[in-house]
Amino acid sequence: MILLDGKKVAGEVKAEIAGRVAQRSARGGRVPQLAAVLVGDDGASETYVSHKARACSEVGFLSQVVRLPDTVGERELLCTVAALNADAAVDGFIVQLPLPAHINEHRIIEAINPAKDVDGFHPVNVGRMMLGLPAFVPATPAGIIELLGRYGIETSGRHCVVLGRSHIVGRPVANLLSQKARPGDCTVTLCHSRTQRLKELCRQADIIIAAIGAPGFLRGDMVREGAVVVDVGTTRVPAATRSGFRLAGDVCFDEVAPLCSYISPVPGGVGPMTIVSLLKNTWTACTGENG
Amino acid sequence: MILLDGKKVAGEVKAEIAGRVAQRSARGGRVPQLAAVLVGDDGASETYVSHKARACSEVGFLSQVVRLPDTVGERELLCTVAALNADAAVDGFIVQLPLPAHINEHRIIEAINPAKDVDGFHPVNVGRMMLGLPAFVPATPAGIIELLGRYGIETSGRHCVVLGRSHIVGRPVANLLSQKARPGDCTVTLCHSRTQRLKELCRQADIIIAAIGAPGFLRGDMVREGAVVVDVGTTRVPAATRSGFRLAGDVCFDEVAPLCSYISPVPGGVGPMTIVSLLKNTWTACTGENG
Repeated sequence: MILLDGKKVAGEVKAEIAGRVAQRSARGGRVPQLAAVLVGDDGASETYVSHKARACSEVGFLSQVVRLPDTVGERELLCTVAALNADAAVDGFIVQLPLPAHINEHRIIEAINPAKDVDGFHPVNVGRMMLGLPAFVPATPAGIIELLGRYGIETSGRHCVVLGRSHIVGRPVANLLSQKARPGDCTVTLCHSRTQRLKELCRQADIIIAAIGAPGFLRGDMVREGAVVVDVGTTRVPAATRSGFRLAGDVCFDEVAPLCSYISPVPGGVGPMTIVSLLKNTWTACTGENG
Repeated sequence: MILLDGKKVAGEVKAEIAGRVAQRSARGGRVPQLAAVLVGDDGASETYVSHKARACSEVGFLSQVVRLPDTVGERELLCTVAALNADAAVDGFIVQLPLPAHINEHRIIEAINPAKDVDGFHPVNVGRMMLGLPAFVPATPAGIIELLGRYGIETSGRHCVVLGRSHIVGRPVANLLSQKARPGDCTVTLCHSRTQRLKELCRQADIIIAAIGAPGFLRGDMVREGAVVVDVGTTRVPAATRSGFRLAGDVCFDEVAPLCSYISPVPGGVGPMTIVSLLKNTWTACTGENG
């Protein structure tokens, strides 16, 4: 069993990006800037945004956080989006989700200039990704693909079972892995809450991507010997840690890991890859080059 | 075995649309207009466009065909698209594919105003469809969904195997059937040329959608008793008919039909449903109402 060490790979990718930023800067080029809009004071959102800002500084990007109270109106938030669209110093930006219930998330996302939509949530980017055209791909699926690629895992013709049909992970990763690409060319089965005979399906999989947000959901008896398992779960569960919680994956690691050829841990697997994918998208937004 | 009689259902849907057009017209409302751009003189394209024009006249829509020689330049074609975008009398239009090799299809499609893109090929519509938002859905997948719905076929929790990953049929129908909707909520496996153990996968399917364009590909030993089979193939094969060809489906009908609970024939299955989906999209483009 080989651990898909996202933390290590993310460090390598960040070093590559830092090198390119330094080169660009030395040539007198502008350094990329990522902005994040943070509405309210949700603890998890705070953490995600601060991780993103730290990653920016690690590679030499500029970053800024626009903080708005959770009482902000939709119109005011749309004004913030318009200002970031217009700000030539900002190459890409994200609006950290979830937003308060009184705000229509789709309306906000569709207001973002697709060329600055480094989260890849705008319909234009979703559509272009699905059509196999150049697009900002959402960070988590992009990170998973990069992780599989960096470990040289063969995907062509393999049967990949994706657990979870979210727009942020399950659907896009299913789409990417089914495309004529490398990594890609998988036969993909997309499973969800209504799926019947799930165990039977999982046991046929060469690759399982678990993205449902249910701690320990994937048990040992659902995985065949030699499978590749990617754990996208990051549920906060209470624990005797300084923060009062720990991150729990969707995979029952102790049962599943011994069966696997490769498995990604939580934490330290997909999470760090997600952030570097965001950095790569921001690099592309700034330079027009692939990240 | 029950035949999924697309010709009959399409007739019913057309009668419904015709009724709404007549009502709208009686209230003094403008009648929807569909335009088609036809480049060159490909026989199949000619046939498709003339079928679409005939369907328009059957339901009381206006239609027009803009004919351009296959020597037309990309810029000229973009001008035609711009003119149709600007023409308030045209509610929706299609550019019949394929286009000559010297023209970039994506560039043409992305030039169409998404609000008039009744083929549903523009990235905005593809993305919105994938996100489960209101969108123009490509006509063939929409027609398949409608056919399943009209026959009251249960899809929730069922395992659907889609053969073929094209952007026009396989991918969108896989996406639609996996959505939380009715018909929908399927577990979907998307198969293609690289898929291994295809027979084994097909034999597990409750529903098979064959969209690969290989006549008679799906044989009896690939289908389990009681399955629902939808045949999207429409390959022209030489035959002793007036036209010199006949349409061949992807399903070996004689072997597969006796095993099925439901099966769509070729011709007379998905084909007629495709055209009524285009009419419904045009109705929506004109009126803002669902088609």
